[in-house]
Amino acid sequence: MTIKVGIFGATGYTGYELIHILLRHPEAEIVFTTSESSAGSRLSDLYPCPWDLLLIASAEAPLDAIDVAFLCLPHAASMDMVRRVREAGVRAIDLSADFRIPDPATYERWYKTPHTAPELLEEAVYGLVELHREHISKAELIANPGCYPTSVILGLYPLARKGLLGRKIIIDSKSGVSGAGRTPKLTTHFVEVNENLSPYSIGHSHRHIAEMEQELNALNGPYEIIFSPHLLPVNRGILSTIYVEVPSDLTAEQVHEIYRETYAGEPFIHLLPPGQVATLRHTVGSNRCAIGLTRLEGTNSLIVTTSIDNLVKGASGQAVQNMNVMFGLPETMGLGEDRRQGARGEGRSA
Amino acid sequence: MTIKVGIFGATGYTGYELIHILLRHPEAEIVFTTSESSAGSRLSDLYPCPWDLLLIASAEAPLDAIDVAFLCLPHAASMDMVRRVREAGVRAIDLSADFRIPDPATYERWYKTPHTAPELLEEAVYGLVELHREHISKAELIANPGCYPTSVILGLYPLARKGLLGRKIIIDSKSGVSGAGRTPKLTTHFVEVNENLSPYSIGHSHRHIAEMEQELNALNGPYEIIFSPHLLPVNRGILSTIYVEVPSDLTAEQVHEIYRETYAGEPFIHLLPPGQVATLRHTVGSNRCAIGLTRLEGTNSLIVTTSIDNLVKGASGQAVQNMNVMFGLPETMGLGEDRRQGARGEGRSA
Amino acid sequence: MTIKVGIFGATGYTGYELIHILLRHPEAEIVFTTSESSAGSRLSDLYPCPWDLLLIASAEAPLDAIDVAFLCLPHAASMDMVRRVREAGVRAIDLSADFRIPDPATYERWYKTPHTAPELLEEAVYGLVELHREHISKAELIANPGCYPTSVILGLYPLARKGLLGRKIIIDSKSGVSGAGRTPKLTTHFVEVNENLSPYSIGHSHRHIAEMEQELNALNGPYEIIFSPHLLPVNRGILSTIYVEVPSDLTAEQVHEIYRETYAGEPFIHLLPPGQVATLRHTVGSNRCAIGLTRLEGTNSLIVTTSIDNLVKGASGQAVQNMNVMFGLPETMGLGEDRRQGARGEGRSA
Amino acid sequence: MTIKVGIFGATGYTGYELIHILLRHPEAEIVFTTSESSAGSRLSDLYPCPWDLLLIASAEAPLDAIDVAFLCLPHAASMDMVRRVREAGVRAIDLSADFRIPDPATYERWYKTPHTAPELLEEAVYGLVELHREHISKAELIANPGCYPTSVILGLYPLARKGLLGRKIIIDSKSGVSGAGRTPKLTTHFVEVNENLSPYSIGHSHRHIAEMEQELNALNGPYEIIFSPHLLPVNRGILSTIYVEVPSDLTAEQVHEIYRETYAGEPFIHLLPPGQVATLRHTVGSNRCAIGLTRLEGTNSLIVTTSIDNLVKGASGQAVQNMNVMFGLPETMGLGEDRRQGARGEGRSA
Repeated sequence: MTIKVGIFGATGYTGYELIHILLRHPEAEIVFTTSESSAGSRLSDLYPCPWDLLLIASAEAPLDAIDVAFLCLPHAASMDMVRRVREAGVRAIDLSADFRIPDPATYERWYKTPHTAPELLEEAVYGLVELHREHISKAELIANPGCYPTSVILGLYPLARKGLLGRKIIIDSKSGVSGAGRTPKLTTHFVEVNENLSPYSIGHSHRHIAEMEQELNALNGPYEIIFSPHLLPVNRGILSTIYVEVPSDLTAEQVHEIYRETYAGEPFIHLLPPGQVATLRHTVGSNRCAIGLTRLEGTNSLIVTTSIDNLVKGASGQAVQNMNVMFGLPETMGLGEDRRQGARGEGRSA
Repeated sequence: MTIKVGIFGATGYTGYELIHILLRHPEAEIVFTTSESSAGSRLSDLYPCPWDLLLIASAEAPLDAIDVAFLCLPHAASMDMVRRVREAGVRAIDLSADFRIPDPATYERWYKTPHTAPELLEEAVYGLVELHREHISKAELIANPGCYPTSVILGLYPLARKGLLGRKIIIDSKSGVSGAGRTPKLTTHFVEVNENLSPYSIGHSHRHIAEMEQELNALNGPYEIIFSPHLLPVNRGILSTIYVEVPSDLTAEQVHEIYRETYAGEPFIHLLPPGQVATLRHTVGSNRCAIGLTRLEGTNSLIVTTSIDNLVKGASGQAVQNMNVMFGLPETMGLGEDRRQGARGEGRSA
Repeated sequence: MTIKVGIFGATGYTGYELIHILLRHPEAEIVFTTSESSAGSRLSDLYPCPWDLLLIASAEAPLDAIDVAFLCLPHAASMDMVRRVREAGVRAIDLSADFRIPDPATYERWYKTPHTAPELLEEAVYGLVELHREHISKAELIANPGCYPTSVILGLYPLARKGLLGRKIIIDSKSGVSGAGRTPKLTTHFVEVNENLSPYSIGHSHRHIAEMEQELNALNGPYEIIFSPHLLPVNRGILSTIYVEVPSDLTAEQVHEIYRETYAGEPFIHLLPPGQVATLRHTVGSNRCAIGLTRLEGTNSLIVTTSIDNLVKGASGQAVQNMNVMFGLPETMGLGEDRRQGARGEGRSA
Repeated sequence: MTIKVGIFGATGYTGYELIHILLRHPEAEIVFTTSESSAGSRLSDLYPCPWDLLLIASAEAPLDAIDVAFLCLPHAASMDMVRRVREAGVRAIDLSADFRIPDPATYERWYKTPHTAPELLEEAVYGLVELHREHISKAELIANPGCYPTSVILGLYPLARKGLLGRKIIIDSKSGVSGAGRTPKLTTHFVEVNENLSPYSIGHSHRHIAEMEQELNALNGPYEIIFSPHLLPVNRGILSTIYVEVPSDLTAEQVHEIYRETYAGEPFIHLLPPGQVATLRHTVGSNRCAIGLTRLEGTNSLIVTTSIDNLVKGASGQAVQNMNVMFGLPETMGLGEDRRQGARGEGRSA
């Protein structure tokens, strides 16, 4: 089975990463790639790569030639294109935030723009596979999760679903610069970022809180989320250091066992041994999420460290994982974790 | 007045930074620099610099020729040399941790080694000038503060002294690699650090907690400190993102006013306007501490962001600031903040 | 067909990269991985990865269970192990320099140690596939090329074979730090490398000149090679800026045509359009070599810029490319360039 | 004596660096700072610093209140402002390229714009102090040299003036990103630069060649200059690796002696011992130029490595050095090299 793929908005970092992944995917074929600003160019004109994929205007995109569309468009711009895709009967995986929040009013409050395709919100499934695999397998429209929420929700899900998570959650996240997109700005100018570290939108103001609340509050919530992102001088990766409270009598071993059990068999969760911490290096270039658990004995405090590659598990890799689930392919196909080794070099830890 | 200076342990990063600062100080003269491992070499043999200061063994150091000794030795190694310096009647500024903790048992618990000069602990003054200027001006032995504690204590002092600081303090700190010293290790190998971010000793285990507890608990404490340092891929700088609780009815403006009042006239405190955050770039290369205050309205949460240069305000600059105070010099001398500008280019903000 | 693989010296950067590549290779199975210093550990104990491959001492390695051995050992240490492998009748791909120089005296002159397995030099084939594909396909022992020589020889081969290359060749190369290995040293300490750039062994002294001379002098040589490597503050990649002389009447178009013709069909050569320059980003993470040609009109000067990833095309990727050729597999298998796209997203440029 | 200073174009990197230097200069007072785009703002609104200098429109600048004007404006924009400054009888130090090339036609050829103040070209002095100290001391208008030319001319001047420099000069330069200015562009976007290295304008096309030719051709020229700049992933610094030919019988010691003699007493030249190479770290943050000499014995080749900080010796530090010379101040004042150490810690090497 070859899945025919169209990519809308191919020239940003998530679009480029998606192309990079799909070119190695054994069962995917890229049929078209669009770019409004660079229509007529080749991808190799825009990136130092040998792939001379032709970029076309989205109006020219042959929707009847594809099985699934990936939308790597900016927030708000994505809504109308998703509608066009869905009206053509094509499945859609939307990497923007436009379909992540089922309630249009909540969407508008965080994103400062009205939702123009509210009729599609109901069919949209939040594409965090580890939480919603069943729904995803039948979905026609996937809202691919945001990068920060992926790193946070996966880090807290096992505790939240068991009702063991204290109300106040403090998340100190640090992200590589590719998360800010490819458009040049002073805040992402090399000299401003390099040898620097900058907090931004800290506290209650970053809009990714909407997704975190949505997914976590459904699990024995509500919670109060304090979220402080920082811009790191690296290209890729998100590290979240999460401070939560758990019952005082819950031991480090019990916490670890809860995570182990919840994520048993998950190919992309790399649960670290008790006391070890996640680092960016655990996941950069992969579709994994690494999770470390540091229980402060004698208190009710737990520090959860998680890391993901913001462009892979935080965006394009997760989108391909969703595609694999939607089309009944092995979930790891094309994502580099589909191999198991022989007798002397045994598999994975988790 | 020229102050004659000796430097013990001149070849690590703090020693080198100290030399760099003192070479520009108009009233200091470096009389000798020691290094056990490199005695006989010139500084220019060890660092890409033009300064060919001769390194001598500490046993050869002419204590009678100096007014003050700076000790840039490793923890534990410093104690005996400080005793020798003090027995010669020379004032000492110790950059190690050996005299920061007045209680020898507490020292031993955190540093895993007995204190071998406990008789000197009483005269040692903790050299955080903004808190202890009066004592420092009369001190013979200064325990120069640790880098992380400097960034944390300065960030919380105004609230703590007013009794407005909640008991639980969560500190998420990020430090440049020079804080780990110059001895090559796998954890500071370029390839391991670059494009990475690593938490380490998170929770209750980093020994700098001892200093934080010591200074803060004396101010309407005790407090419970959760401290999570991270190794950043930059050379210099510490950013601390500190999550605390304050009375719910304390407004952002009131918080700011408390800091403004506490630090009025402090030449090295750069208090940012309400809502602004500190970044590494605010302080790298300077002896300043930048402080940002983000009050989460409608809750009891406050996020304090602070930044310092770990080698300057976090080590050698602060040591020179201490020297200036001890010898009655202008506190900013040689530290780059001693100039004020004329009519159209008015002074500093703070 | 599954090729059973053993890896000697698995814990350095080239060994780890090789494992990373082979875990995705559809026809390779890693049977064992050795490490003298870490025998008994798992790979996941040494690297932040989920792969818990067991490391064994080389003496325990079951040579009868493998089809091919990769040797990622230091120079000089490799010779004896290669002999053991060959005596067991197993094919060997040696990533060290030990079999790259057929003449033992020349080897000893550059590497300051006698060659202890000279009887194997004759069967060794220099594994630069683009030059020696035929020999490699029948080889039992491959001397995998050095990283710098790969970037240089591929950049000059088309001109040299045509006899169009002037005698004096000036090579200014810049390499990422992983090329210096994983053993901590002051020269690779983060603070020393970051925000720095250091030339080293410039002129006539770097031993990789031996390989360059060997391969190039056979092509209408001899040449005089001036080679100046620099240590770049990046993890991976080599950029070589090569200054050569060509006949004055050779146009930019003719030069480009010579390269195009020489490398027609080469899957890993990315020849850039005339006037474009190679950057590290062209090849990092891939097994490609990018080549840019800048002809200075009206003179006899040509500047060739080449880039490779030192750990992939400059080491482990090239080793797998050699394996593929030796075992009759598609040359690109497992190396990420084996896919071609459909009608609208046509193939590669070169 | 206090020199009253005005700064035109204060908000770019060279303007900001100049302010940073002048704030520490004991005999300079900044009277005004201009910015067309940010008039009315404070410097602390634009940079993470505590200096709240008011920015005014250049039309408001009180020329009668200053002794000297520094112009940190873009090429072409500087000409008219320099005329206004000179017409007011105020001395000018122009950091743009507008007065570096005495011949208007040559200027226009390289800078693609006509020169609109040609009548001032004659009085302009090229402000490379080590070559033109006498003229600078009497000058009213200084053309502050470009960053690359400073690194190249200082590296070749001793040989060229002696007539020992071969005709063909190959310069491989690597520059930090601050050299490209503060305006956000894709080429200086963090993700594009970090972990990358890019040659640009290589060969005969970079306009800084004009200055190199001008200064060097006057010294036993003409020369053929091949100049290849590269964009380095660091904030500051230029390293130039320069390949030249010298008489075959000139020994390494003789070459070194020629440099030693030429630069005897120069406070900002750091001549390294024979065989040592310059690195960025030698000069970052200082106004020095480090020079290393690598003579390839038995050939006519010499490799000269030089490093400067592009914002200091390559721009604002050199501008202050010029000011010091123009006003009869000690040349090193405010530039951090004005101190000599006592008996045990002897001076500088050079």
